[in-house]
Amino acid sequence: MTDPADGHSVRFGVNYTPRVGWFHHWLDFCADDVARDLDTIAELGVDHVRIFPLWPVLQPNRTLIRPRGLADVERVLKLAADRGLDVCVDGLQGHLSSFDFVPAWLTTWHRRGFFTDPEVIASTAAYLTALARACAGHPNLLGLTVGNEVNQFTGTVHPEPYPATERDVAAWLDAMIGALRAGAPAAPALHSCYDATWYDDTQPFTPVQAATLGDMTVVHSWVFNGTAQLYGPDAFETHAHARYLTEVARAFQTDPDRPVWVQEVGAPRNVLPEPFVAPFIEATVAHLTDTPDLYGITWWCSHDVSRSLADFPELEYDLGLIDERGRIKKEGLVLAEAMTQLRARRRAGAAAAERPSLLLDPTAVARRDLAPGGAFWERYMSVAREGGHPRVTLAATVEA
Amino acid sequence: MTDPADGHSVRFGVNYTPRVGWFHHWLDFCADDVARDLDTIAELGVDHVRIFPLWPVLQPNRTLIRPRGLADVERVLKLAADRGLDVCVDGLQGHLSSFDFVPAWLTTWHRRGFFTDPEVIASTAAYLTALARACAGHPNLLGLTVGNEVNQFTGTVHPEPYPATERDVAAWLDAMIGALRAGAPAAPALHSCYDATWYDDTQPFTPVQAATLGDMTVVHSWVFNGTAQLYGPDAFETHAHARYLTEVARAFQTDPDRPVWVQEVGAPRNVLPEPFVAPFIEATVAHLTDTPDLYGITWWCSHDVSRSLADFPELEYDLGLIDERGRIKKEGLVLAEAMTQLRARRRAGAAAAERPSLLLDPTAVARRDLAPGGAFWERYMSVAREGGHPRVTLAATVEA
Repeated sequence: MTDPADGHSVRFGVNYTPRVGWFHHWLDFCADDVARDLDTIAELGVDHVRIFPLWPVLQPNRTLIRPRGLADVERVLKLAADRGLDVCVDGLQGHLSSFDFVPAWLTTWHRRGFFTDPEVIASTAAYLTALARACAGHPNLLGLTVGNEVNQFTGTVHPEPYPATERDVAAWLDAMIGALRAGAPAAPALHSCYDATWYDDTQPFTPVQAATLGDMTVVHSWVFNGTAQLYGPDAFETHAHARYLTEVARAFQTDPDRPVWVQEVGAPRNVLPEPFVAPFIEATVAHLTDTPDLYGITWWCSHDVSRSLADFPELEYDLGLIDERGRIKKEGLVLAEAMTQLRARRRAGAAAAERPSLLLDPTAVARRDLAPGGAFWERYMSVAREGGHPRVTLAATVEA
Repeated sequence: MTDPADGHSVRFGVNYTPRVGWFHHWLDFCADDVARDLDTIAELGVDHVRIFPLWPVLQPNRTLIRPRGLADVERVLKLAADRGLDVCVDGLQGHLSSFDFVPAWLTTWHRRGFFTDPEVIASTAAYLTALARACAGHPNLLGLTVGNEVNQFTGTVHPEPYPATERDVAAWLDAMIGALRAGAPAAPALHSCYDATWYDDTQPFTPVQAATLGDMTVVHSWVFNGTAQLYGPDAFETHAHARYLTEVARAFQTDPDRPVWVQEVGAPRNVLPEPFVAPFIEATVAHLTDTPDLYGITWWCSHDVSRSLADFPELEYDLGLIDERGRIKKEGLVLAEAMTQLRARRRAGAAAAERPSLLLDPTAVARRDLAPGGAFWERYMSVAREGGHPRVTLAATVEA
C-alpha cells in the first residue's frame, strides 16, 4: 500500500470489466483472456485494478466456498503481478451495472436478513475470510472491499430491499471488515457504498460508517445521480462532483489523515454527450488535484461491455477506456494524460495550498441537503467556485 | 425412445443428484466424479437418468448461452452412454429442492414476466433450442423437459410469483416445447409440473395442458403434499398417490394412448418415518404395476445431499438411493427389486386386467376436489380400495 501520508503519489487504476463475457468470465475462467486484458490495461499507465468475483459463483451454497473460484481469483492476482499491477479484490457482488447477483440461499424461499440473520452473517463472513486468505499471500494485493456498493441492497430505492437499521449495518460492517482482516491482516480492509449513503436520509448505511469503519474512506462518484441532469454536462458542479464527495466524506472522519479513495468514477453517456466526455474526464481529475490524502482514482471501467450482451442500461456499454475489441479509446488517453498532470502538480506541492473552510452542522443539515441541489451542496459549490474547494468541518468537531 | 404402445417395458431411472457439490457441480464440472456417480447408478439396474443443468449457469446473460456449459451437458450424455444409460435433460432449473435458481436478468431491477415478456420468452426459447441442439446428436437422449416444475414460479404459493394467466401459460408452453423440438426434432419434448397443476385452482398451469401438450404426460408425486399427513405413512392413499396422479392425468388426455411418465417420486422422511420407507417404495411401485401406457418410473433421487451443504429442508438430505459416500442404500435395493417385479408382472399381462371406471365432470369438480382429502379423491380411493384402480373418464368425453 502506498503511504497515505505521502500525499504526492496518488494511485491510478481501473475497475476491471473483462472484455470477453464481462463478469460472467468467472464461469469460463480463461487466463489467456485475462492476460491480454491486463496487457492493454497496463498500457494505460495504471498501477492497479479492482476486480469483482461474482458472489453466487464463489459461494453457491451457504457452506460451499468453491476452491476453484478462489484459485481463479489468485490467478488474476498473479497475472496482474506479472504486469506490475496491484489488485483490489471485492467480495460481495452483489450489485454490478444494474444486475443483482445474489445466491439462491438468500432469495425467494430462503429469503432472510442479508444484514441481520445470524447464519447469513456468519456464512458471509466465512466467505470474506476465505477470499481474503486466498489473496493474503500475494504481494500485489492492494486491499479488499466487503463488496461493491453493498448498500444497494437496502434502503427505499431497491425494488426488494433487505431491511436493516443503522445499528444493524454498523454491526454488519464490523463483522465483515473483521472477516476480511481475519483472512488478510496486513491488507487494507474497506467497504464501498453508492452515494445514497451521503445523500439519502432513508439509507441505513451512514456517512459516519463510511468515514470511520475500515482502513480508508471510499467514495463512488456518478454524475447520473441528478448532478448532470440538474446542472448540465459541462457545469462546474458536474466536474466537481467527485471532489465534493471527498470533502464531504472527510468531514465525517474522526481521523483527519485517513486516506480517501475515489474508487469509482466514470463518464456516463446518458448525461454526458460525446463532446462533453473528454472535458469531464480532464476536469474531474483536475478538481481532485489538491485533495488532501487522496489515496487514488480508479476509473470505471477498463473495457466496454460487449454489445452482444443484453439488458444493460444503455449508458453501461460505453463506460470503458478500452473498446470491446481491445483497443484503447480516446477516453483512455485523456485520462492517462490527466493523471500524469495530477501527479506532476502534486509533486510540485499543489496540495499544500491554503483553502477556504465550510462548517457542516449535522444536527441542522439532513442528507438531502448534501445531495445535488441541496442547501449545503449549493453553499459548498458557491464557495468552491470562488475560492477553491473548501475544507468541510463538522460543527461538532469545532465545538469539541 | 421405448415404444409406448408396447406396454410391457416400463423405463426405470433416477433423477441424478451429483454426489459432490449437488447441482453446483456444473460450476466445477468433473468428468471423473460424474463417471463414478453413474457407475453406482448403473449398479441399481436403471436404464436412464434425468439431469438438471442450472439455468443461470448456462445462460447468465439473456444473450449469452455458454458453449462450455452445453459441452458439459454433452459430456454427461457421453459418460451415461458408456454405461448403457439414456438421459433426459431438463432446461429451466429453476426450482430444485427448495432453491430457486433464476438468472439476474430476470430478478430485482430486471424483474419482468417470466411467462409473458416477449424478450424473455424469445431468449428462454433460444436457450432451450441451443440445449436441445447440443443433445440432439446423442443416441442415448431419452427426452428433453422444458424445466423442472416450472409452475413453481407462478400461482399463489410462491413468495414472489411471476404472474401468468392460463392463456399465457398455454402460449408459453407452446413456445417452449416448440423450442425444444426446433433443436431436437426426434426427441420427446416434455414439460413437468408440481402437483398444484392438478390440485390447486389458483394455479395457471392446468391439467389439460399437462395432459395434451408435449409428447407425454408427466407427473411428479410427492406425498408430503398433505397425503401422508392426512392419512398416515402406511395408508392406502399414501401408497396409491403416484398411481392416482397417473389416472387423473390420463383422464384429461385427448389421446388415450399417450404415455404417462412418473418422472419424480420419492420417499420423504418428514412424513415417512424410517420403518415405513421400504413398504412405501414397494407399495408405490406395486400400485403402478397395471397402469396403462406407463412410460416409466424415475425415482427422486440418486444420491443423498451431502450434510456439508446447508439450508436444504431436512427431508431433502435423505431422499437418495445412494448415500453421500457413494454406497447403495437399502432403499436402492428395495426399489430395484420392486421394479423387477413390476416388469415381470407386466410381461405376464397384468396391465390387461378389467378395471372399474369413474366419471370426472370437470364442470362440477374443482381442482381442490381432486386434492388429497377432496371429494373426488375420496371417491376414487374408495373405488380403488374395493375393486382396483379405476379408469377415470372425463364427463365431456362420455357425452361426446
